[in-house]
Amino acid sequence: MELNVYLAGQIHDDWRKDIRDQAQTMDLPIQFTGPMENHDRSDNIGEEILGEQPDAIFKDEAASQLNNLRTEVLMQKADVVIALFGEKYKQWNSAMDAGSAVAMGKPLILIRPNELHHPTKELANKAQVVVETKEQALQALSYIFETQ
Amino acid sequence: MELNVYLAGQIHDDWRKDIRDQAQTMDLPIQFTGPMENHDRSDNIGEEILGEQPDAIFKDEAASQLNNLRTEVLMQKADVVIALFGEKYKQWNSAMDAGSAVAMGKPLILIRPNELHHPTKELANKAQVVVETKEQALQALSYIFETQ
Amino acid sequence: MELNVYLAGQIHDDWRKDIRDQAQTMDLPIQFTGPMENHDRSDNIGEEILGEQPDAIFKDEAASQLNNLRTEVLMQKADVVIALFGEKYKQWNSAMDAGSAVAMGKPLILIRPNELHHPTKELANKAQVVVETKEQALQALSYIFETQ
Amino acid sequence: MELNVYLAGQIHDDWRKDIRDQAQTMDLPIQFTGPMENHDRSDNIGEEILGEQPDAIFKDEAASQLNNLRTEVLMQKADVVIALFGEKYKQWNSAMDAGSAVAMGKPLILIRPNELHHPTKELANKAQVVVETKEQALQALSYIFETQ
Amino acid sequence: MELNVYLAGQIHDDWRKDIRDQAQTMDLPIQFTGPMENHDRSDNIGEEILGEQPDAIFKDEAASQLNNLRTEVLMQKADVVIALFGEKYKQWNSAMDAGSAVAMGKPLILIRPNELHHPTKELANKAQVVVETKEQALQALSYIFETQ
Amino acid sequence: MELNVYLAGQIHDDWRKDIRDQAQTMDLPIQFTGPMENHDRSDNIGEEILGEQPDAIFKDEAASQLNNLRTEVLMQKADVVIALFGEKYKQWNSAMDAGSAVAMGKPLILIRPNELHHPTKELANKAQVVVETKEQALQALSYIFETQ
Amino acid sequence: MELNVYLAGQIHDDWRKDIRDQAQTMDLPIQFTGPMENHDRSDNIGEEILGEQPDAIFKDEAASQLNNLRTEVLMQKADVVIALFGEKYKQWNSAMDAGSAVAMGKPLILIRPNELHHPTKELANKAQVVVETKEQALQALSYIFETQ
Amino acid sequence: MELNVYLAGQIHDDWRKDIRDQAQTMDLPIQFTGPMENHDRSDNIGEEILGEQPDAIFKDEAASQLNNLRTEVLMQKADVVIALFGEKYKQWNSAMDAGSAVAMGKPLILIRPNELHHPTKELANKAQVVVETKEQALQALSYIFETQ
Repeated sequence: MELNVYLAGQIHDDWRKDIRDQAQTMDLPIQFTGPMENHDRSDNIGEEILGEQPDAIFKDEAASQLNNLRTEVLMQKADVVIALFGEKYKQWNSAMDAGSAVAMGKPLILIRPNELHHPTKELANKAQVVVETKEQALQALSYIFETQ
Repeated sequence: MELNVYLAGQIHDDWRKDIRDQAQTMDLPIQFTGPMENHDRSDNIGEEILGEQPDAIFKDEAASQLNNLRTEVLMQKADVVIALFGEKYKQWNSAMDAGSAVAMGKPLILIRPNELHHPTKELANKAQVVVETKEQALQALSYIFETQ
Repeated sequence: MELNVYLAGQIHDDWRKDIRDQAQTMDLPIQFTGPMENHDRSDNIGEEILGEQPDAIFKDEAASQLNNLRTEVLMQKADVVIALFGEKYKQWNSAMDAGSAVAMGKPLILIRPNELHHPTKELANKAQVVVETKEQALQALSYIFETQ
Repeated sequence: MELNVYLAGQIHDDWRKDIRDQAQTMDLPIQFTGPMENHDRSDNIGEEILGEQPDAIFKDEAASQLNNLRTEVLMQKADVVIALFGEKYKQWNSAMDAGSAVAMGKPLILIRPNELHHPTKELANKAQVVVETKEQALQALSYIFETQ
Repeated sequence: MELNVYLAGQIHDDWRKDIRDQAQTMDLPIQFTGPMENHDRSDNIGEEILGEQPDAIFKDEAASQLNNLRTEVLMQKADVVIALFGEKYKQWNSAMDAGSAVAMGKPLILIRPNELHHPTKELANKAQVVVETKEQALQALSYIFETQ
Repeated sequence: MELNVYLAGQIHDDWRKDIRDQAQTMDLPIQFTGPMENHDRSDNIGEEILGEQPDAIFKDEAASQLNNLRTEVLMQKADVVIALFGEKYKQWNSAMDAGSAVAMGKPLILIRPNELHHPTKELANKAQVVVETKEQALQALSYIFETQ
Repeated sequence: MELNVYLAGQIHDDWRKDIRDQAQTMDLPIQFTGPMENHDRSDNIGEEILGEQPDAIFKDEAASQLNNLRTEVLMQKADVVIALFGEKYKQWNSAMDAGSAVAMGKPLILIRPNELHHPTKELANKAQVVVETKEQALQALSYIFETQ
Repeated sequence: MELNVYLAGQIHDDWRKDIRDQAQTMDLPIQFTGPMENHDRSDNIGEEILGEQPDAIFKDEAASQLNNLRTEVLMQKADVVIALFGEKYKQWNSAMDAGSAVAMGKPLILIRPNELHHPTKELANKAQVVVETKEQALQALSYIFETQ
């Protein structure tokens, strides 16, 4: 049995690579998917495909068409969704993805530093598992496969 | 025909009262629901009902049990969900509610100042209608009932 | 028992009024809903609420946000959807609404002149009932209530 | 990961072949499906299997039984639906398929020349992505797989 | 609380009237619906509304469009479906309705003489309650409301 | 707005009456439903309606047909399900009802003495709210309606 | 792409083998499933596994537990359901399976001799395709795969 | 065709190993999944991953987060759920899993000693198949694949 896990959250650093690498080290039969991690490309993908837009708002609308296409397709294939929150960035799309995941019946693992417990409290309550670190999230995934 | 509209978003000012009042002035047959708007009570409701908790994280977990019960029950009854975003606050639970609403098949009206177009771009793309003001959201609701 | 029937189709003439009037004459306990029938308003509603748009395409996008909000809310409340097709107009939104209705599990009554049988053939096959006239559609609705 | 994409739209020219060929050139792991593209066969399939029908209407009803069987089976397997609209033909079944796809939770990519923006406006609003060319649709699909 | 109960089964005698009368005597807050009980009208409703059909098969297809419209609308509103089987008639549509009801999540009460236990065995297994008489079915419905 | 709350759990004492009475004192607009609370009748309802059964196992099967009919109908109408667990009785049907409720998307309030935390731990994790007393459960319900 | 097709209907002759053989000759990538075709075993499977039952009714109930387990598991995996009706046998379980299939969103192909058009009329109306022979059903399946 | 079967129930002895071994002997193409069978690890998994908790209740809550993550992911992949009940242990999570399985549309096989018929009666009524032994459950699974 193989699992498919969608990694929701910010795309400003390499946290997904850490998870992928560690999962490989742990030999977990998991396929990870997620959003476009090249931040500039993610912002510009609308104009890249659809051409120049009238202003910054329409540029964003164009980009989000493509980003949400990707998220929608990949999240429908996911068995589990992990959402990571950190101190920086607004991360409203991560929270939206987390809310969507739960409403779609996908178990959610929330990774957030304990310091953020207050603003993430409703997210934490909806999540199936709440952890502080990527390592803990991987342990949770690993537990699904372990036999003793 | 009467509609039921859930008002997701921050609970730090009276924006819901403005919407309720204006809807009444406009004679719209709409019942509005939403979260507990008394912010202190919302934060303390867990300990109020369940007693003192071990620390601030568990206090938040207790409170969010109750807040999410309320949101879940009321959002399932809603025909439309309005989510308002502003400059202040993290508003992750608002974004989570918006994501849930769309995944539950509830049309979403997003209210946000244009300045926030970038961090709300994926939310805006998922919303059925995106506006800048409460008045525009009410006009959108009113349009559902108008005959000419 | 009362039924709720959504009337999908063009908004260039008074066909919905005919149905409403005749249903009243027949004393049918049916509440009819449908799109905005004032064609100009339907085209301009986006700019009316959201302000001037960059060009005609964005004006249409703005208008369709509001028109689809209305359709979505009202069609979710419908027990039956009637879609009327005629010789004029492209009527792609009517066909889209008809397809949505069937996929949402709403029985569809298709009204179309026999001359249009070829381009409506897949729609006719998906519809629960196919008729040529508004009177026949009303007879079909009336049959749901009749006891002998 | 492989995607399955259903290509809805007219069957009077080779546009699907273009998409298939270009996807192969781009090395996209996508399986494309769609309706019977031999137009005469599509029109005659009812009588081919079920025998001669009483008149042209019943011949169409017979054919659409088979065409909708095919569409239904293949669209249920699809991860994404592309619908192409052009200047010619009524294309009501394409609009119906697009409406069904969205109601079934399948992300929709709409391809239409900008000139058709007005009659496709509600379709465009329901689509996840709206483009003008087949190449853009393929870029959108490719973006789902790209990592930087 | 009021229940809505759909009465599936043959339309050759007055068994539904018995149930309605007895429910009224028992003061049960139940609204009963069901198919057209005038057998001739049920057979002819297609031609009555749609006009003469090419042959008996098409006449039946026309009638079943209307009969299934009625069943579909009313069964979607039902909280419980009762299906009655007897010695006479093929009753394939009753069995189909029973199968649909269970797949739609509607609890099914099956009424059948014990002699028919063999051909109804899979139906009996799918039913929530299996009884021999109308009186027993009414007792089952009554039990839902009773408080001691 | 009125809520409908199903009270799952043992039927050996009057705990539901306490909840109903207190809700009335608190003026909560809630309609409560639940299983047959007369324990003997609940055990005998199968034979009461269906006649004597071959042995105790078949008697139980007959009774549970009727008890589950009642539960199924009433739980589908519920907005919230409360499940109460106590020291006595096996309460497997209560746990089954709680599991069903959550899988049907109904928010669950679990009432259990803290001493039972270990055997109820998976139930507690699935519940939206976990409390120790009936009073706390009513406070949770009341919170849904409160405005400050 | 491979399809999975469930063959509902009587188990008194070898009609399924004909379909399987012919599909192989036609090289169709279809996996067929269906009920236990050994009629005696199907009737006795309850007592075979569960031991002797009190009487013929309970024996049937025991058997149908197992037969419906098989049907349920296999029909959930099916892309298409074929139901065959003939002159003999009551075939109520076939009609029930057909009704379930349609309510589960599985396209239904109905095979019935034209002589049976009257008792199958509601089934025919619910089916996606109605044919008279097994060969026609196979042609319909084949059409899903054909490219010209 | 391969089936995926989730084995719900207590984790205090090796009953799952018996089923797995016997299935292998019988050459059944079945993949079995289930909860963590190391009882101590199942109880401690919360603290193992999340660190020490404030008290035994919170320790249980932490553990059940992980145990329910595993159950949720694996049960969503299951074609059939088997739930085993015995004389010992409260087994409320098994009953909850059984209730969830049925509400999720997964056929349930209940294994319980006949002596437990009374407390399992509602579970038995919801199960598709009720047996006394593991061997009988395997026979039931085997029957799904057998051809004569």
